Amino acid sequence: MAGTHLSIRIDLSNGDRIGPGKIALLEAIRDKGSISGAARAQEMSYRRAWLLVEEINHALAKPAVTAEMGGRSGGGASVTPVGEKIVDLYRKIETSARSAASTEFRALGKLVRHGK
Amino acid sequence: MAGTHLSIRIDLSNGDRIGPGKIALLEAIRDKGSISGAARAQEMSYRRAWLLVEEINHALAKPAVTAEMGGRSGGGASVTPVGEKIVDLYRKIETSARSAASTEFRALGKLVRHGK
Repeated sequence: MAGTHLSIRIDLSNGDRIGPGKIALLEAIRDKGSISGAARAQEMSYRRAWLLVEEINHALAKPAVTAEMGGRSGGGASVTPVGEKIVDLYRKIETSARSAASTEFRALGKLVRHGK
Repeated sequence: MAGTHLSIRIDLSNGDRIGPGKIALLEAIRDKGSISGAARAQEMSYRRAWLLVEEINHALAKPAVTAEMGGRSGGGASVTPVGEKIVDLYRKIETSARSAASTEFRALGKLVRHGK
């Protein structure tokens, strides 16, 4: 809750975006093995999680998530190697950005109003 | 239309955010000398520009924009030294982030669907 925080948005050439919400959703799908489980973990509706997955898949040359519809287990989902790569690259970009800009970032933190 | 693009959002401890839209608005106010001129340049309503300025000022210990209400000239606005500093720090953070993450960023660009 506290502290000033840097987050990264990637605006793709096709108009889609990748940001912290979609990346956290991919990580949750990887951890939970289903879109419904990931939606619960991220405190979003199943519908919203599903739409975000569609957006992510649409933005990429190959899908980041594959889902098994229905079936006895109610349908699981998994993150593909491309999805893993996206998460990994995003987290690396975030870490590099934070460390490269840390001086300016601290200076900016000092100009911010503290408390509410 | 153009290539994949990295943008930075700063989530402040008080819940406000600074991102590319607010920074571009500050630059436009600096260039145009008024909120109405900046709103036109940024293709947003005067009301939206005004609300964004309020948000920026509220987020900071000292205001980034001061406005003269009314008067013969219809009221100008100017960016304060704190506002200039915010713009400068944000642009430096953006440049450092892009250069630090350029390898990962190119790798990510290759996974994106091209065209629509």
